[in-house]
Amino acid sequence: MRRWNGWGDDSFSMTTPESGMEFLQSKLTPGPVLPDADFASVCEQVPESRLQDHPLVSKDNADRVRHARGQSLPDWLAMRSGDFGVFPDGVAFPETTEQVETLLDYAWKNDYQVIPYGGGTSVAGHINPLQSVQPVLTIDMGRMSRLLDLNEDSQIATFGAGTPGPEVESQLRAHGYTLGHFPQSWELSTIGGWVASRSSGQQSLRYGRIEQMFAGGIMVTPKGRWQIPTIPASSAGPDLREMMLGSEGRMGVISEVQVRVTPLAKEERFFAVFVPNFESAKQSVKEIVQNKIPLSMLRVSNALETETQLRLAGHESLIKWLERYLSFRGNKDGKCLITFGVTGNKKQNALSLKQAMSVFSRFGGVKGPAMMGKKWAENRFKFPYLRENLWLAGYCVDTFETATDWHRVTSQMESMEAAVKMAGEQFGFTPHVYTHLSHMYAQGCSIYTTYVFPNGETYQQTMAYWKAIKQAASESVANGHATISHQHGVGKDHAPFLKAEKGDIGMAVIKGMVEHFDDKQLLNPGTMLEKES
Amino acid sequence: MRRWNGWGDDSFSMTTPESGMEFLQSKLTPGPVLPDADFASVCEQVPESRLQDHPLVSKDNADRVRHARGQSLPDWLAMRSGDFGVFPDGVAFPETTEQVETLLDYAWKNDYQVIPYGGGTSVAGHINPLQSVQPVLTIDMGRMSRLLDLNEDSQIATFGAGTPGPEVESQLRAHGYTLGHFPQSWELSTIGGWVASRSSGQQSLRYGRIEQMFAGGIMVTPKGRWQIPTIPASSAGPDLREMMLGSEGRMGVISEVQVRVTPLAKEERFFAVFVPNFESAKQSVKEIVQNKIPLSMLRVSNALETETQLRLAGHESLIKWLERYLSFRGNKDGKCLITFGVTGNKKQNALSLKQAMSVFSRFGGVKGPAMMGKKWAENRFKFPYLRENLWLAGYCVDTFETATDWHRVTSQMESMEAAVKMAGEQFGFTPHVYTHLSHMYAQGCSIYTTYVFPNGETYQQTMAYWKAIKQAASESVANGHATISHQHGVGKDHAPFLKAEKGDIGMAVIKGMVEHFDDKQLLNPGTMLEKES
Repeated sequence: MRRWNGWGDDSFSMTTPESGMEFLQSKLTPGPVLPDADFASVCEQVPESRLQDHPLVSKDNADRVRHARGQSLPDWLAMRSGDFGVFPDGVAFPETTEQVETLLDYAWKNDYQVIPYGGGTSVAGHINPLQSVQPVLTIDMGRMSRLLDLNEDSQIATFGAGTPGPEVESQLRAHGYTLGHFPQSWELSTIGGWVASRSSGQQSLRYGRIEQMFAGGIMVTPKGRWQIPTIPASSAGPDLREMMLGSEGRMGVISEVQVRVTPLAKEERFFAVFVPNFESAKQSVKEIVQNKIPLSMLRVSNALETETQLRLAGHESLIKWLERYLSFRGNKDGKCLITFGVTGNKKQNALSLKQAMSVFSRFGGVKGPAMMGKKWAENRFKFPYLRENLWLAGYCVDTFETATDWHRVTSQMESMEAAVKMAGEQFGFTPHVYTHLSHMYAQGCSIYTTYVFPNGETYQQTMAYWKAIKQAASESVANGHATISHQHGVGKDHAPFLKAEKGDIGMAVIKGMVEHFDDKQLLNPGTMLEKES
Repeated sequence: MRRWNGWGDDSFSMTTPESGMEFLQSKLTPGPVLPDADFASVCEQVPESRLQDHPLVSKDNADRVRHARGQSLPDWLAMRSGDFGVFPDGVAFPETTEQVETLLDYAWKNDYQVIPYGGGTSVAGHINPLQSVQPVLTIDMGRMSRLLDLNEDSQIATFGAGTPGPEVESQLRAHGYTLGHFPQSWELSTIGGWVASRSSGQQSLRYGRIEQMFAGGIMVTPKGRWQIPTIPASSAGPDLREMMLGSEGRMGVISEVQVRVTPLAKEERFFAVFVPNFESAKQSVKEIVQNKIPLSMLRVSNALETETQLRLAGHESLIKWLERYLSFRGNKDGKCLITFGVTGNKKQNALSLKQAMSVFSRFGGVKGPAMMGKKWAENRFKFPYLRENLWLAGYCVDTFETATDWHRVTSQMESMEAAVKMAGEQFGFTPHVYTHLSHMYAQGCSIYTTYVFPNGETYQQTMAYWKAIKQAASESVANGHATISHQHGVGKDHAPFLKAEKGDIGMAVIKGMVEHFDDKQLLNPGTMLEKES
């Protein structure tokens, strides 16, 4: 069963080898292990629902607890401590677009706030209800999780918006297709959530971001059912798809999603390469993507991420051999791991691999053992489980990410890492901070930073650590020329920083669109646009 | 000098061989040759300007004539007959964004309508002033035509919005880059116009549409200067670039455009293939694009376009040889010409060519002479000059285009061609109608139909022919599941049909955005959204 206070299914857990933990402890002293609340006692805290009865709405306390929080670090602390603050007043589980319409109508007539809920994997507070005088109805799309249509001629698949990643892929795979969208949250997140929050997957280099996949769909809005038809491309005015994308529940509830799918590739392979230093690694991947060498995945870990990943993966003897070998080849302390993939037909893959390796070689790159590429593919969705292990060892782990143009990548990364460290140092510790570049574009790339810090003496103190770090990291993004989020959306946590990116005029445009649909301010208020007090 | 009443520079004209004209005459009897108006007499018709004097504004009659019309067929008939109807009251030629701001301010204070003018190549009435009580100021961006900045690290070039295609390419080429945007209007159209009207170029398969190139820029709006920063990708809410794109002058005047550029390719080659029939040709290109074989251009002429192109190009002896050879190989009457290109490094091009040819072969395709691909590249921007030649022979030629999903392509093409024919037959002639598919996507493609019809006895009658044909063609698009324009924009001519594509809710969203910027309805009124009477 899905964990009520952590990531994933409780039948699965990851082990972190002793040597990995020792490595981390050598870098950073852990905090105390904080006590977990239990589910039953949290359910007892839930106040009485303020919703009128409706046959589609559950007021069950367990449902309300399970839909109160996403997967951000504050959500984690709330769930582990049992200090939730706010719960939705009820949860609905519609099975059709008509039922979504019925629910929106019911909410509108009664002045209820509405929060659309996909997989509940937001790391930016998208689905958290805020304290408010209006009751809150969460609409869980999880029962709209079927492949409704597949047009093989035009390669368009129609899904219920609540279809999670594994269902999307297994239903398409049966017909010989893939969507190719693999965000790290893939096991739990949904296709409607990907559209609403402009998600990007690990193989965006081949398949594009969700923006390139999203061909049309249905959003149930207070103004009626908004259907965007599938058209391959159009010059007819502003692109309305690009308004539904990233709407984060502020304009309506996405109920059906039509996506562009791709025939399953004949072959897919992943590889690891070590490059002597970060600048060389960055230059090599930039050259590859700017020259349109058709890889399907490309990622650069900086030196500390490279070391941390090798250590946390254990396999000490392999690491020692690897380090000896790499040092012999000139890849010493500053070495950076590049992971990349080729996906397609064999001849094309062979050529792409050869051309990519020739670039890496010019930058001093040497291929890692074949096993490393395979391991990456096997473990690609496992990172979120690490949080549980570190938590039990007295650590919090969190990530944040942005994207910027190539000429700003190094300085932006350095500024973000420094901001996190300085924020921790106020409290007397130096967070363990490392970064990778992924989602490569000719113009720039995303920068994804992970930081580990010790638990505080209390939950309140731990939350204070996080707040200071998050604020510092967000400011470093907002003060750069970078986006407040490349792939996690705005939610409530990033809303204060959106203006730095969009400007006053852009903010007014977005506000106008939101208000056009939602003149009562009932749709997911506080998300994307800060709540006006 | 640029022709005041036709396409291109008057130092260039195309010749159409006698045999080509004979072919056309065998299909369709020409109409009379209608008399041309002369420039001086048109200038004399221009009424007094209603604008207050301003140092940046010319009220010169010649300027006002030269900015009154675009390049649609109604524009052509207006220019050739001298019956213009409406002229702008003045034309400004700003040289900086600040001057554009000054001009917008001047217009706003005086309640003048504002029409931004790029290359004046619209075929949908974008830049035509309408009869109105408010004076009309046209802002010609032609003096903002420089490369302002080139960031080679992030491959972002910044141009003045009025930079025309050849200037864009020559300025980039000097640094080893290309934009790769080659619409048929390339010789005259501008980078700002491409953004404002969501243009697509002949090599969109490699370089993308202008949407994929447009990284950011400046629009001067009544709410202030709106600058969209360059960020490679973002999940932070609706994408504002996609609102500026296709804004068609309704929200402001685009003054600077930042685009993603690409290093010049090592090699570029174009080829011709003949496939026995249209269905096979369509299936073959669909297979290529759905399997991501990296070609840079791909185009299928239907059987009548294939025949017409071969005949109008002359070279009778070559054609006879070709037809004998192709007939021997099984490509008889229904044969369709596929033109395609590879652009990149030599090894990749060789593989792409081989893989594409292997698909064509499976569909019975045979390669045409090498000269044919070269000829296509040489003549790629010449088609608009053909209108002049046909006009002098008693014919009008016009085109329209759409895009739709693959499963609707054949029926949409047939419906469009039938609609044009039936519209002509009311008047006692059958237009010569042919079509090509281009701008291939995994989901579908664009459909581009050309039609030739005889001049009427008068300009009025010729216009009546065109109106009936355009209405019928537009209805066939609006009644299908296709866009009213894949690459020409909405303008005034397509505005009545936009609702069929966007729906009531979508239209209200667009209207809301326009009114947010332009509460006085002074910015290019009647374009994109029909004028409310």
